[in-house]
Amino acid sequence: MCADSVKNRQSSRSRVSQKKVVQKDGSGWLDVSVPFVNGMHGWPGNPPTVITMHLGTAKRDVCNVSAVNLNSHAGTHMDSPFHFLAEGKTMDDLPWDAVIGRARVVEIRDKKAIRPAELKKLKLQRGERVLFKTQNSMKSWRKAEFDRDFVYIAQEAARFLVDCGIRTVGVDYFSVGGFYKDGIETHHILLGSEVWIIEGLNLSAAKPGEYDLICLPIRLAKGDGAPARCLIRPV
Amino acid sequence: MCADSVKNRQSSRSRVSQKKVVQKDGSGWLDVSVPFVNGMHGWPGNPPTVITMHLGTAKRDVCNVSAVNLNSHAGTHMDSPFHFLAEGKTMDDLPWDAVIGRARVVEIRDKKAIRPAELKKLKLQRGERVLFKTQNSMKSWRKAEFDRDFVYIAQEAARFLVDCGIRTVGVDYFSVGGFYKDGIETHHILLGSEVWIIEGLNLSAAKPGEYDLICLPIRLAKGDGAPARCLIRPV
Repeated sequence: MCADSVKNRQSSRSRVSQKKVVQKDGSGWLDVSVPFVNGMHGWPGNPPTVITMHLGTAKRDVCNVSAVNLNSHAGTHMDSPFHFLAEGKTMDDLPWDAVIGRARVVEIRDKKAIRPAELKKLKLQRGERVLFKTQNSMKSWRKAEFDRDFVYIAQEAARFLVDCGIRTVGVDYFSVGGFYKDGIETHHILLGSEVWIIEGLNLSAAKPGEYDLICLPIRLAKGDGAPARCLIRPV
Repeated sequence: MCADSVKNRQSSRSRVSQKKVVQKDGSGWLDVSVPFVNGMHGWPGNPPTVITMHLGTAKRDVCNVSAVNLNSHAGTHMDSPFHFLAEGKTMDDLPWDAVIGRARVVEIRDKKAIRPAELKKLKLQRGERVLFKTQNSMKSWRKAEFDRDFVYIAQEAARFLVDCGIRTVGVDYFSVGGFYKDGIETHHILLGSEVWIIEGLNLSAAKPGEYDLICLPIRLAKGDGAPARCLIRPV
């Protein structure tokens, strides 16, 4: 709530370092979401993240309220099949077991792409939720600008994941597909088989291994995707 | 992700009925969040919720991406102490045990306010997370416009909750305090004692009783509040 009689002035918010992106508290939950910050980078061409002070105690309003402008694929977020498939399921259809349950954090060494060669060693199981930790977590989030050279899932690897019956895939930058390559293909392959996708994770503080996962997107009606909070806890 | 070469046209999104706000799936989790819908009502004077199609397969773009404009206190959301206290904790300080754990759904019969008289019968325990189900859940969300006569927590009741050592309070409309009365006072009393606040729940499908609660707000850096997803499951 906040009084509607208070004056409405805009003011820009100070930047928060993207470096401090993973925090721990006593509960064991590790926050693998990136913070939403005014001016943070996002997929080129999509509406930017603009967060401003709408009401502020600093300017003698009775309370603080922020205006938050972003897009359905900003920061840590999920994709629904409808993101790329005109007749695909929307965020309304997200099954909770895709985002609440065991998950495996897997480290990928390839500096360019996630490929079948590395995936074959993982002995992936049907129904697994897999979060891929690549050099993106250590490198891409720290850049001042959007990193076009992020590590992505090659389309052959996407097909491999579908063949394995993977339930949910998480990646540590804005897209499962690459900027220059396999952007459309990898999305179509995964979403076409209703693999649920979490994008924009920061896994720099997560060691490879088994975790409990909770990832809850905001309830964006009929969403093609939605900003989400994502926590993991070692098993 | 989505290609940045695609044309950028705006188009309004169809309205989604606010009536279908609580869904169940086989997992037992009950979604007590309200959907974010273009044009949905919110606190008067705060930036409105505007959700538009940025890219759309319906207009031959390669994918669907939504522009999402709202404020930190839109729909189902949390308040941090910083919402009303200039030196208060922000959403960065949210402890997970305030939003993950047991919670009690309590039904309030008073049609105007939550008052100490009803609270005294509940035998509230230190550390409890309490979600108040009032007539708001059945009435206020169904209105075409913002309901100024929603049931709120009277300031005496807020003091009672603080004295009981309540950890987290959830309410079923936009504010713990009233529109005409106790708006500022109730916030100051609860936030001043670091009671964490969840607002904008729809509890129409939740019977009074014990539940597991997960409520995750998006990670709005230094937030005075943040949109959140909130699930409960009967114990």
